[in-house]
Amino acid sequence: MSDHTAGGRRTAITSDRSKRPRIAVTLGDSNGVGPEVVLKSLLDTRLGRFVQPIVVGSAHVLSIHASRLGYNDLKTQVVTHVPEAVMPGEVVVLDVANGEKVHVAFGQVSAEAGRIAMKSVERAVDLCLEGQVDGMVTGPINKEAISRAGFKDPGHTEFIAHRTGCKDYTMMMISDNLRVGLVTGHIPIWDVPKGVTRAAILEKIHVISACLRHDFGIQRPKIAVLGLNPHAGEGGVLGREEMESIVPAVQDACDEGALVFGPFPADGFFAIGAYRLYDAVLAMYHDQGLVPFKTLAFESGVNYTAGLPIVRTSPDHGTAYNIAGEGKASPGSMRSAIYLAVDIARRRVSERSQRKAG
Amino acid sequence: MSDHTAGGRRTAITSDRSKRPRIAVTLGDSNGVGPEVVLKSLLDTRLGRFVQPIVVGSAHVLSIHASRLGYNDLKTQVVTHVPEAVMPGEVVVLDVANGEKVHVAFGQVSAEAGRIAMKSVERAVDLCLEGQVDGMVTGPINKEAISRAGFKDPGHTEFIAHRTGCKDYTMMMISDNLRVGLVTGHIPIWDVPKGVTRAAILEKIHVISACLRHDFGIQRPKIAVLGLNPHAGEGGVLGREEMESIVPAVQDACDEGALVFGPFPADGFFAIGAYRLYDAVLAMYHDQGLVPFKTLAFESGVNYTAGLPIVRTSPDHGTAYNIAGEGKASPGSMRSAIYLAVDIARRRVSERSQRKAG
Repeated sequence: MSDHTAGGRRTAITSDRSKRPRIAVTLGDSNGVGPEVVLKSLLDTRLGRFVQPIVVGSAHVLSIHASRLGYNDLKTQVVTHVPEAVMPGEVVVLDVANGEKVHVAFGQVSAEAGRIAMKSVERAVDLCLEGQVDGMVTGPINKEAISRAGFKDPGHTEFIAHRTGCKDYTMMMISDNLRVGLVTGHIPIWDVPKGVTRAAILEKIHVISACLRHDFGIQRPKIAVLGLNPHAGEGGVLGREEMESIVPAVQDACDEGALVFGPFPADGFFAIGAYRLYDAVLAMYHDQGLVPFKTLAFESGVNYTAGLPIVRTSPDHGTAYNIAGEGKASPGSMRSAIYLAVDIARRRVSERSQRKAG
Repeated sequence: MSDHTAGGRRTAITSDRSKRPRIAVTLGDSNGVGPEVVLKSLLDTRLGRFVQPIVVGSAHVLSIHASRLGYNDLKTQVVTHVPEAVMPGEVVVLDVANGEKVHVAFGQVSAEAGRIAMKSVERAVDLCLEGQVDGMVTGPINKEAISRAGFKDPGHTEFIAHRTGCKDYTMMMISDNLRVGLVTGHIPIWDVPKGVTRAAILEKIHVISACLRHDFGIQRPKIAVLGLNPHAGEGGVLGREEMESIVPAVQDACDEGALVFGPFPADGFFAIGAYRLYDAVLAMYHDQGLVPFKTLAFESGVNYTAGLPIVRTSPDHGTAYNIAGEGKASPGSMRSAIYLAVDIARRRVSERSQRKAG
């Protein structure tokens, strides 16, 4: 790994961001598989045709992972600000550690790893807000590590929402043929029925609907809503939330002119592949959405935070401490996360330039 | 359709039931797709090499469906008791309607259809208990139709359990590479946490474990148990049932010498295909088990009632009134249900003869 800061033919990275957007990619937790999947993704040379990636994290941590994986000829351009131009074949690394030799302990929870990970996220969000980059992709973090480092948000999503001043957002899982949103997220099953209110469902429908229109370019999106109970309540015999909250919320959305359908019994819906008929599926709780999503789309699934003012995606796996530093991690989901950020960023950049022109 | 009761070279159907068991197959609701999928399954001549099927239902209803589907050369042997011998190429029909011209109204809920359907189930159970057949497969019924006909059990499973005097049973979904059991079944999500008790989980582990040993011939079965909450409760932060009920129940089972593992977070478990490492998976509630099962195994999945003194399987679909009589129903699941009943019946017949010999 070497730092090339002078000489050679540089390429301006600001040329046409609607074709080749700048995407900040954070390394995630230093002790997990984040830096590995980022490296593996960026070393695929096809990626560079579509995106100008800016790695945000500790340059030292990246070099430790690179040498562990045997990438000894990795060329980096270590910077402290987004550069004007970049050498072909070099990976731009915005070093948030300012040259500090951050310790790497593969597979260990550490406050230091949590601190650097969140500093990277902070910086990437700011780059997005300042318009220096067009979107961001976050490498996986460890909740305990960031908590030890003094961060109070339970994860990336809440942290980014706070920092961008956003209240109505929702985590969506995206794959080639399935987009899933959740009404309730990381809460016990016991609390799920209380969270499935008419207002909460309608709000999620609004966020998902706007996301499908603006971020995916679907002008009249069709959204399927799942039931909460077995057989979607079977007319009240197996639960009343469908009649009391879900059906009214679907009706509210239809009254507003949206194409919203359901509630459907979740098992039959996935059994017959009905999700292929809709642009997104709204599940009532975590496992109802994530179990079929991951069953159908593992290693290519991407998390997307719909409703934010900035573009943010992430792979659908965690730090995978058990295989950190072993070279076994698949970069599939990270690569898909980068491509999805590129697609959405392009659409937003071209929407902005159309608005300016119009 | 014709009734051949004399002449020709008959084959004894009692010869070797450990190789070619007798299986009662009920037609299910007369107005649904049950008779159609039974007909399509039985007309596949390969089936006859492995099983002697005895159709139990109304011979008139079967003839209506056969002519609707264009099976005009269907040959039946209509009987009122299990016959001694059968003509090759003939379908044996045990007519529970005694020649009555039961009305067929495709796609309609009717008390008459419910009455005949349950009379068939009753008769098939009795044939099993009397040892006249080695197992039974049930065609799909309609809950409202059987309720109108005066039956109080919510479905087949409870009815059969009552009639065979069985208390500890559990519905399992079976496919080639996945077997799933449930701790709680047709109850609202609201009631699920209360149903997930240490005792209930341990009882289901016992039933599934015995089923895997006796019915599937797996001497030391490995069972995976899922968590109730997202991330299996994440150490109590996302719910306490794992710590208070599920972990203790898994420990109880392990203390008894069983190979029981978990609780696993449901999404990650199916994401990485971990179910392939276990002989069965115990899910905590309906959608948690059925959504991934149907996503992975639709049209080849079979329901099996584990723990009964008799062998009973069924297809994993319902009456499908919307396509009844149209010839569109796939017989895949019914055919798999018959083959599974055959496999389990063979194993039980040969176990019985070994015990007699021993």
